[in-house]
Parts: sequence; structure tokens; C-alpha cells
Amino acid sequence: MDIERDDLSIADMKFGTDGLIPAVVQQHDSGEVLMVAYMNAESLAKTLETGSTWFWSRSRQSYWMKGESSGNVQNVMDVRYDCDADTLLVLVDQTGVACHTGEHSCFYRSLRAPALSNDETAAQAAKEDDDS
Amino acid sequence: MDIERDDLSIADMKFGTDGLIPAVVQQHDSGEVLMVAYMNAESLAKTLETGSTWFWSRSRQSYWMKGESSGNVQNVMDVRYDCDADTLLVLVDQTGVACHTGEHSCFYRSLRAPALSNDETAAQAAKEDDDS
Repeated sequence: MDIERDDLSIADMKFGTDGLIPAVVQQHDSGEVLMVAYMNAESLAKTLETGSTWFWSRSRQSYWMKGESSGNVQNVMDVRYDCDADTLLVLVDQTGVACHTGEHSCFYRSLRAPALSNDETAAQAAKEDDDS
Repeated sequence: MDIERDDLSIADMKFGTDGLIPAVVQQHDSGEVLMVAYMNAESLAKTLETGSTWFWSRSRQSYWMKGESSGNVQNVMDVRYDCDADTLLVLVDQTGVACHTGEHSCFYRSLRAPALSNDETAAQAAKEDDDS
């Protein structure tokens, strides 16, 4: 199978040994990356057919539609695949928030470089010494 | 470990059974999703320490720095993690293009809904019939 072709179908996607492919979900206009979840061939087909995002829950081993209980549905504008056909990018219009924590995106926290964290910790400790 | 904390470190990330975590790479200003690759704890540490993206190649079983041979390096602006701490979002400033095909982003192709594809195929066939 030539993955360089421009007309690949669901069957051409490279699902992992667990039958899943990661799907990055992005707000179509703002570009905000909202969440990453996993699809199998069936949930990808349902996503394309219904225009709402359907995933496979690895922890619950079941299908789930985003927003089915919360109402925070994702209307699908486009489903793209990468050069290796092993990752999806789903452009959506998000209703409400994407994250179960109430944050708009699931990516609301940053890691800091160990060196930076240490410097900041030292600076903070020095500041607290000065303040006391 | 409480993944709701705001100060998680590399050791708190939830790497898969293969020791890897998916990293979505996004252009920091335009919001374009450029690529998705995988990091282990060591390549994540190198990414934070050096300010360039380092990944683990599952096919070659080796470390690779994006742009090391092509020059298309990614300068890291921020590394975020999601609510489950099992996916990274790396905000970068991309030099040149991100995709080995020469496209700016790896996500340059779209899947179409089976129903839509069939309709379009039928419409195209009808058009060709008309033209002939």
C-alpha cells in the first residue's frame, strides 16, 4: 500500500497493534489543540458518518461520543491524516469546553526545564529568606 | 500520584508500556499542528534542556533530533501536558518545513466521509457520462 497516495481511506490508516490510532482534536478556527484521544476503525467511520467525534476508551474498553453526557459535542469540520497515515488530526467546532476538568483545552499546564525549575526554586527560596 | 497537581515533572508523566508518550508539535503563533512523534523520558529531558525537539524513533529504535540532518529544527517555546498527563503538546518555532515530504505540516491530506466519497464518485461518474 502506497501511503503517499492522496486518496487514502479508513482501511488504509495504520492502526496500532491494539487497533487504535491517536486523534489530535483541534478547534478549526482558533487553532487551539483541545485534546488527544484514540479511535479504532469503527469509531473513525462513525465520526465521518455522523459529523460528531467518536472515540474508543482504552480504560473502559468502550465507544464514547464526545459530549454525549456533558453536551460539549464536537462538530467535525475535517479529518486529516499525517504523512505516515498513523495519526489523525480532527478539526472541530467545540461546543462548551473540551476537558472534563472544566478547562477549555486539556493542555492547560506546562512542564518546565529541570534547570529552570531548579533556578526558580533557588530564587524563590532566596526571596523567602530575604522576606523573613 | 495526584495528576491534578499543577507542578508535575517528567517522572510524573504517564509513559506507555513501551516507555513512550505521544508529543503533538504545534507552531506556537499560527497554531498549525505540524507533526506527532514519540518521546521517552530521556528525549523529553533533552528537549527541555536543549530547547530543540528530541524524539524516540520506534522504527529505528534510536533518538533523533528534529532537523539534525535537514536543518529544519524546532525551537521549543513551551511543553504542555494534558489532564491525564499521558500526552504532550510542544509549542515550537519551526525552521523550514516539518514534514519529510516537503510539506509544511505532516497533516496535508484529508479523509472523506464514505457517504460523501460515494456521492462524489457517483456525481463524477455522471458528469463524465454527460461529457462523453
